[in-house]
Amino acid sequence: MRILFINPNTSAVFTERIGTVLSGYALPSTEVVALNPASGPRSIESVYDELLSAPGTLETILENPGFDAYVIACYSDHPTVYAAREILEQPVLGIAEASMLAACMLGHRFSVVTTNDSWGPLLRDAVQHYGLTDRCASIRTTGAPVLALETAEAETRKLILDAARKAIADDGADVICLGCAGMAGLDKQLEVELGVPVIDGVVAALKLLEGLVGYGVRTSKRCAYGRPGRKGLVNLPAVFATPYAD
Amino acid sequence: MRILFINPNTSAVFTERIGTVLSGYALPSTEVVALNPASGPRSIESVYDELLSAPGTLETILENPGFDAYVIACYSDHPTVYAAREILEQPVLGIAEASMLAACMLGHRFSVVTTNDSWGPLLRDAVQHYGLTDRCASIRTTGAPVLALETAEAETRKLILDAARKAIADDGADVICLGCAGMAGLDKQLEVELGVPVIDGVVAALKLLEGLVGYGVRTSKRCAYGRPGRKGLVNLPAVFATPYAD
Amino acid sequence: MRILFINPNTSAVFTERIGTVLSGYALPSTEVVALNPASGPRSIESVYDELLSAPGTLETILENPGFDAYVIACYSDHPTVYAAREILEQPVLGIAEASMLAACMLGHRFSVVTTNDSWGPLLRDAVQHYGLTDRCASIRTTGAPVLALETAEAETRKLILDAARKAIADDGADVICLGCAGMAGLDKQLEVELGVPVIDGVVAALKLLEGLVGYGVRTSKRCAYGRPGRKGLVNLPAVFATPYAD
Amino acid sequence: MRILFINPNTSAVFTERIGTVLSGYALPSTEVVALNPASGPRSIESVYDELLSAPGTLETILENPGFDAYVIACYSDHPTVYAAREILEQPVLGIAEASMLAACMLGHRFSVVTTNDSWGPLLRDAVQHYGLTDRCASIRTTGAPVLALETAEAETRKLILDAARKAIADDGADVICLGCAGMAGLDKQLEVELGVPVIDGVVAALKLLEGLVGYGVRTSKRCAYGRPGRKGLVNLPAVFATPYAD
Amino acid sequence: MRILFINPNTSAVFTERIGTVLSGYALPSTEVVALNPASGPRSIESVYDELLSAPGTLETILENPGFDAYVIACYSDHPTVYAAREILEQPVLGIAEASMLAACMLGHRFSVVTTNDSWGPLLRDAVQHYGLTDRCASIRTTGAPVLALETAEAETRKLILDAARKAIADDGADVICLGCAGMAGLDKQLEVELGVPVIDGVVAALKLLEGLVGYGVRTSKRCAYGRPGRKGLVNLPAVFATPYAD
Amino acid sequence: MRILFINPNTSAVFTERIGTVLSGYALPSTEVVALNPASGPRSIESVYDELLSAPGTLETILENPGFDAYVIACYSDHPTVYAAREILEQPVLGIAEASMLAACMLGHRFSVVTTNDSWGPLLRDAVQHYGLTDRCASIRTTGAPVLALETAEAETRKLILDAARKAIADDGADVICLGCAGMAGLDKQLEVELGVPVIDGVVAALKLLEGLVGYGVRTSKRCAYGRPGRKGLVNLPAVFATPYAD
Repeated sequence: MRILFINPNTSAVFTERIGTVLSGYALPSTEVVALNPASGPRSIESVYDELLSAPGTLETILENPGFDAYVIACYSDHPTVYAAREILEQPVLGIAEASMLAACMLGHRFSVVTTNDSWGPLLRDAVQHYGLTDRCASIRTTGAPVLALETAEAETRKLILDAARKAIADDGADVICLGCAGMAGLDKQLEVELGVPVIDGVVAALKLLEGLVGYGVRTSKRCAYGRPGRKGLVNLPAVFATPYAD
Repeated sequence: MRILFINPNTSAVFTERIGTVLSGYALPSTEVVALNPASGPRSIESVYDELLSAPGTLETILENPGFDAYVIACYSDHPTVYAAREILEQPVLGIAEASMLAACMLGHRFSVVTTNDSWGPLLRDAVQHYGLTDRCASIRTTGAPVLALETAEAETRKLILDAARKAIADDGADVICLGCAGMAGLDKQLEVELGVPVIDGVVAALKLLEGLVGYGVRTSKRCAYGRPGRKGLVNLPAVFATPYAD
Repeated sequence: MRILFINPNTSAVFTERIGTVLSGYALPSTEVVALNPASGPRSIESVYDELLSAPGTLETILENPGFDAYVIACYSDHPTVYAAREILEQPVLGIAEASMLAACMLGHRFSVVTTNDSWGPLLRDAVQHYGLTDRCASIRTTGAPVLALETAEAETRKLILDAARKAIADDGADVICLGCAGMAGLDKQLEVELGVPVIDGVVAALKLLEGLVGYGVRTSKRCAYGRPGRKGLVNLPAVFATPYAD
Repeated sequence: MRILFINPNTSAVFTERIGTVLSGYALPSTEVVALNPASGPRSIESVYDELLSAPGTLETILENPGFDAYVIACYSDHPTVYAAREILEQPVLGIAEASMLAACMLGHRFSVVTTNDSWGPLLRDAVQHYGLTDRCASIRTTGAPVLALETAEAETRKLILDAARKAIADDGADVICLGCAGMAGLDKQLEVELGVPVIDGVVAALKLLEGLVGYGVRTSKRCAYGRPGRKGLVNLPAVFATPYAD
Repeated sequence: MRILFINPNTSAVFTERIGTVLSGYALPSTEVVALNPASGPRSIESVYDELLSAPGTLETILENPGFDAYVIACYSDHPTVYAAREILEQPVLGIAEASMLAACMLGHRFSVVTTNDSWGPLLRDAVQHYGLTDRCASIRTTGAPVLALETAEAETRKLILDAARKAIADDGADVICLGCAGMAGLDKQLEVELGVPVIDGVVAALKLLEGLVGYGVRTSKRCAYGRPGRKGLVNLPAVFATPYAD
Repeated sequence: MRILFINPNTSAVFTERIGTVLSGYALPSTEVVALNPASGPRSIESVYDELLSAPGTLETILENPGFDAYVIACYSDHPTVYAAREILEQPVLGIAEASMLAACMLGHRFSVVTTNDSWGPLLRDAVQHYGLTDRCASIRTTGAPVLALETAEAETRKLILDAARKAIADDGADVICLGCAGMAGLDKQLEVELGVPVIDGVVAALKLLEGLVGYGVRTSKRCAYGRPGRKGLVNLPAVFATPYAD
């Protein structure tokens, strides 16, 4: 099977890292492709950034049909995953959603450890959108900017470790979710240091989608994710008209 | 004071109607400007449409600084209002949010009556985002497409009336919110026929913002709506870099 | 338009202050009248006090018909506002409700800072009644008695400031609501010191009601706030029988 | 032990019926006294009626100290029970609360069957105040006025039976709570006809309080129900000053 | 009346203590019998232990029909109480449920103080099952093993006292529930030291059931607790087939 | 990898069917073993049945160590899965949990279609335990006994189809979960007839666990699922003592 991972920001460092990390986990029969859009912000740290990155991300999906499954590889996955499900029949996962659902199978409550503080209210909202408020022990932020993860120096890793330790000791987390695609590859080392499962949503999305594709199930087109009705588009690339239903 | 209403879709019929309706309600000292983006879908009926409309909507805000308050005049207001609050200090309202808050002052539970069925899950999500689940009696859809409201024939009005009557009788709604900017101007006639308050979010947003501006309060920049940090933008118009904080 | 503010306690100091504060915010076309009942406790710090103040408050409403809107100017507004809506068709707001709804338009979560500790459970209950639990970061109490606000010495203001700072830093509040009518007039100074919006419910009620009256909407009489049915009254002033429906 | 039941309305028919019903259930060692206030509405069917009845109800408590426990024998028990707990150390129960807690021990979800339709939102609020929303299958109203229960003709009983049957079949109720003190005495006959437990809150309050008094536990004065602080009272009977703490 | 208390673990020390404590509270007309199963773990500190204890507990019920009411005298009461209600028509209470319902009548929010840390998630789950999440201020654990309560040395009592003090001061608890049958008998001494009601679920179950039996109400067999349908049992004692309905 | 599926009831027909169905979905590198306990009820239709089946199920786990993952293949998975997680470090899934999590990736809300009516309250409780109440559109029961699925005649299938159609049309379900292990193998045919994804929890558990094992993550032993402490066991097989921690 073939799975497309789209890194919605334009950091090629993150895109490449995603591909590298996944190569260690994909089934022999799975081909993983990792792409990022041609336009958009270098990192996503606000709803404003999300909305600027969304058209490029959706365009990347539309220009790459025919994969067996799609991943939005940014922890701010929520509105873009929703839109991708509307325009696709194949399974789609975001890495926030994937990490949280995987965590739910390994412990009773998870905490998300992420970067700058504005993610606090955004991720609380995302957890609520996914209906998982009762399973979320806390959202912990390190205060470090996303792009510090391009180099992932020891100091950045230490901030993540400290936040995770507080989540476990003070908030009652059984499992830690890494709340940024830029943290891909840090999971196993942190797991050893923390003594609890640490979930990288990038890997979780791969393994969950291999399972869904292997089961042969696809996105429901019934209600929430029905294909959008045809309508005129003004001053937008023609590719954006392709998903509309007649 | 000056208030900017942005109709995020590119239906000039709706933009003009919004201006006309508001002229009957603005204080003598209030100047209302209604605009729509230069690019985007002709109507918004899905998250996909929302995300296509968002950059044009944000660009319209950035090109029109200096208003005292801003309104996102689409019932799918939720992520765009959030982003607008991040990049502005002036008060911002969406018309969904405005209609629901106004309804909360006039009855104990409101229902939203809107157009096609895919709005059901989207608006339940929006109600939850605004924290008003306990105040919402139901979301009722007419099944009619948004653009049927450009002409607003008798049949379209009858569908709205029928849905509102069911919301009142079966769901226990005390107040009806009109769930589409295209319904602007229908409120008073429906109110007479239904016997309960009917709220047009476009008018509600105007009157609530006149109040907030009159009070002299502005958007909190503290946590949720902090200004986004500076970062590189690839292949995007330069205006999108202006709101970033240093 | 004419708006009646009723201070349910019998502290003339508070009633006068409410009138003074509002004179700085009312539209030129708005006439504000501030009254307090002829009977009742000097301050309201418990449900017991609330219930003792309620008949006098309702009597003041009944003796002053014909205003365009009514305000219950006590932060323990909940049952009295409900009753006032049952017996009136004009819009009615309490100052707790008004401050919380205004806060919801300016930040994602608000905290209420109020006086003695027994308000904690009472205001949690009120927040739940208004359906705003998810928007409330915390209720913070200063432990000071309500009537200390009649003089509002520096020490009282410092207690409020400290509690608000904790609400912002520890509880994640974006906006502060002043949880007592006796705090009217303190908002702007605190706003400067705290760096987040500070809402005085007395002003918020005025500006929201000017908007609702300007829109021409009234209290729904459909379900929750239907007019009470006629019944005998024993040993109560005759004015209390006037609102009953036949 | 001695338990005081206060019927907050001034219907002597209901007060007498409460006494009669309880005589069949009290322990030999329990003395039950049933009283109603000297002033107030003849029946309670709105928050307005509740607030008019509250001072007389509280006055009756204050004039009858020394009982081992107190009951507010009206299904609109919520604010008055709260106030009674503030001013008493003995256990206090309302009949709504008592019936719901008893129902929780006999089935997984209960429905309340009550009189006129305005009780719907009021009792949903009460259920939420008692924290029992997840245990409540529905509130069902008969539409009949409260005082029709003074005679309790066959037609009134049939309306109750029909509403209870719908609660069981359509809403999934395992237990029925009779939502009005005027329904006291109807429980056993309805239980035979419905095949599920039917709880009269008047009896439930008696039996639960006999248990609490037998256990020797009293109302917590710690936080929610702390005694109100001393303050001046204007134009109110002196008895109302007695419960204040110094 | 006759009430059977079953201690689901096989600690005869606890069984005997339960009988002793209850002898001080039972009505003269109540006969209390305390038993424990012939097989099972010596203490219950996990779901694993619970499931090992359940068949022996149910067998004890089946071998002792004809009591007027039954109590599962372990704070991990939840699935076993449910099963007991399915196979009995008499009222059944668990001591967790009984202590929480009693606490709800004496304060607005309760905390449970219990033994080892794994009870935290289990009791949060139980509180949610009983629908009382909004009434629960916290679950506080002492970290001490259950069987340390067989001797109940001063140190164990001090741990309980410290946890209860934090629950009151930091979590806002008005009432303390003792979260282990092994704490039976400690309530009154702790109440004196803490200044808030302290509820022993063993006593609470007795007094609540005396009330329910006195009222003449029984477990609803309608929906949740309907009698299980007949089916084959493989390699299980024949007594387990007796409760099946035909 | 090797995965053990335990059918907790003693219906060999179901056990064999589970093995047959899974053979069509397992990866080439996965070995699936399906077993049922030597003792227990022939079907599980109540909490009573669940508790009778639990020791045999746990014994089967303890006698079969060394698998890479374990599945409790009964839709009443909740307490047994919890206990299995306490005593294992490998990943464990129940089929209810697996089907619901898979459904969450394919639609916004799912309904469970199951057998006899007593499952309604039990599965609502399970959904709440898994924290998925907001994602569950409804629980629909067919009223047919579990063992009718051993033959799965046309009539049984029609009842399932009818219930699923109501869930989609009336309750807003996007995805259907088959609420009984005995329905294994019916998913694809129903999917064609219903036009929405239909999830068999047995297959879902296999594919999700293949993913988790492939990722190399294991059950958190930190808080909820910590290994139970050592204690004496009376009259129970010695194998039950093996999982205790020292």
